[in-house]
Formats: sequence, structure tokens, C-alpha cells
Amino acid sequence: MSDTSQHWKVMDKEKLLERKPWFDVYRESLELPGGKIVKDYYGITMPNYTAVFAVTQDQKIIILRCYRHAIGEVTLTMPGGMIEEGESPMEGIQREFLEETGYVAKYWKSLGMFAGNSTRGCGTYNLFFATGAYPVKEPDSGDLEELELLLWTPEEVNYAIDEGLVKSLGVISMLLLGLRWLK
Amino acid sequence: MSDTSQHWKVMDKEKLLERKPWFDVYRESLELPGGKIVKDYYGITMPNYTAVFAVTQDQKIIILRCYRHAIGEVTLTMPGGMIEEGESPMEGIQREFLEETGYVAKYWKSLGMFAGNSTRGCGTYNLFFATGAYPVKEPDSGDLEELELLLWTPEEVNYAIDEGLVKSLGVISMLLLGLRWLK
Repeated sequence: MSDTSQHWKVMDKEKLLERKPWFDVYRESLELPGGKIVKDYYGITMPNYTAVFAVTQDQKIIILRCYRHAIGEVTLTMPGGMIEEGESPMEGIQREFLEETGYVAKYWKSLGMFAGNSTRGCGTYNLFFATGAYPVKEPDSGDLEELELLLWTPEEVNYAIDEGLVKSLGVISMLLLGLRWLK
Repeated sequence: MSDTSQHWKVMDKEKLLERKPWFDVYRESLELPGGKIVKDYYGITMPNYTAVFAVTQDQKIIILRCYRHAIGEVTLTMPGGMIEEGESPMEGIQREFLEETGYVAKYWKSLGMFAGNSTRGCGTYNLFFATGAYPVKEPDSGDLEELELLLWTPEEVNYAIDEGLVKSLGVISMLLLGLRWLK
């Protein structure tokens, strides 16, 4: 399906900065279709992230609220995190979901994988939908942030979206895709 | 509304890499609520981006298709780009929309601003909805990529989403928010 005649050819690639496991920054020299050379094209490698729109047995949606440093305020977020070495995206999200919420869920479905930024990279986001969620233990995320667990109706999620309470691309994507599947 | 007791305090900030206008990478030392010190927290400053879900006078949605290097294939994208120095987000998107599509639109509405990544930053995305779009000239984006303009029905947009043809957080957010407003 993809038209490879439009692909850019990597002539050279150099790592500029490495901060594992958080990110790498690299520079590429590229040859474009038609022969044009671009000497300094920058990419940022970031982790594979996961998130889930999980619905409890009584039809509530599991949302988290915590401080997010790049936003500078306490805001809405979704259960999820970085995939660890050797994990599949599904294993990663099920581990993070249990750690952050203390819940498990009966039915899981992948809603796809999305690049953080289509020109620089900035990681991939593996988004999931889960139903039949119920609590099995106390949450213990190990994260730097203190997480507050919210159980919202679809109407409350729609209200938060309409009122501009959603502050990041990852969360708005997850909520809108989740609502689409809930219907 | 925001609970400032959970905010992290920046003790020190150092720039590690600067590649204007594309991005900066910086390291912060932080004091967390309760007194914990985190010495190496990394952030990535990226541009303010814009995108628009624009609907033509005959109810078609304007989509672009082009090669995206971080995805490595020809894929769907939305009109938009980086806001230039001195521009408001609305001025930026109207300029990019005209450059990339050759269209103008009668009615414009902001659908909000979203961080690329809520822990590292990675830019902000100012998303817009526009209606009454009509062509006034040939497109001339000045971009490295060759842009193909598509005029799709809402059904075609829904099909692309369901078939996994959308490959980035920015595009899936823009399409789902746009479809929400179209109703």
C-alpha cells in the first residue's frame, strides 16, 4: 500500500545525546526523492508507552488524576506507562493497570499504536480498551506522582473533554477512542 | 482548581542540547512534595504546533497524505504546522491551511491546546475546527514532503480510523475531536 518512491533514504545517522531509558536524540543525513540532500534532520527516540480506557463491571471509566510536570498542574491521566524490556504491549499495560489502580479486567482489546510525533518520533503509544474491570488489591504504582483514582460515567468524561480539562494528546486520544468503543 | 501542594519545585535547570527551531533538551533538579530530591529529570521543549479539521462547503473533510519520516511511510496527516514567531495559534493555522491546501474557511473555532507528552513536554498542539472551506489558489507548502489533498466524507474518515490507517497521536486526536464537533 505504501508508496516507497516517496521514502527518504538515510545516508548517515549519529547519536547526539543518550539518556536511557528516557530518550535518545539523533541526527540523520537524508536523501529525498528527486535527489535533494538534507544534512541535519533530527529525531528523538522515546519509549513505547501504553494506556487503557478501562470500564468497570458497573460501567464506570477508570481515570487517574495526578501532577504532571510538563503541564505544571494536577490533571487527568490514564492508567499506563512504559513497556519494560521483554514485555509485549499487552503485558505492559496489564502490569501498569494493576500497579496503578489495583484493578484487573476480563476483556482486553488493542486500539492501535500511534507515534508521539510523526516527524521526530517521540515514542509510540499503544492504546487499549478493557471491560469487566474489578479491584483485587491496593494500588502501588512506584511512580513519583501521587495518583488519585476516579470512577466516572461516560457523561462525566464527555463533560471533562468539553470543559477543556484534558491537557495532553495521549489522554485526549485515549478518551475519545475509548468512548468510540464504548458505544 | 489546581492543587499546588502537589507541584514539583525546580531547584536547578540546565540546557543539554539546543537545535532551534526544532527542540531543546534540558535537565532539571526537582524537589518533590514531602522533600524528595530528583536530580536528573529531563524535559524536551518542542514547537507550538497547529492542526485543523476543516470541512468544505459540500461537507467534505480536508485530509492530507504524505511521507512522514518518523513513521517511515506515506500516511494521513492534517493541515497545520509550526506557529511562527509573533503569530497567534489562529494566525498560524490559517497561514498553514492556505499554504498546504490552497483553501480558506469561513468559520473557525479552537478545540483546545494539548501537550505532546505530559512528563517531558514535546511541544503543544493547538487544534482547530473550521467550516465553509473553499479553494482560492494552488497549494504551496514549502515543506520537504509532497502533499496529496484528499476530500473525504465522515464515513471515509471513520473507515480510516477503524482500519488503523491513522498512525500518530496528533492525527487521531484531530480526527476524533473534529468528528465530535461535526455532529
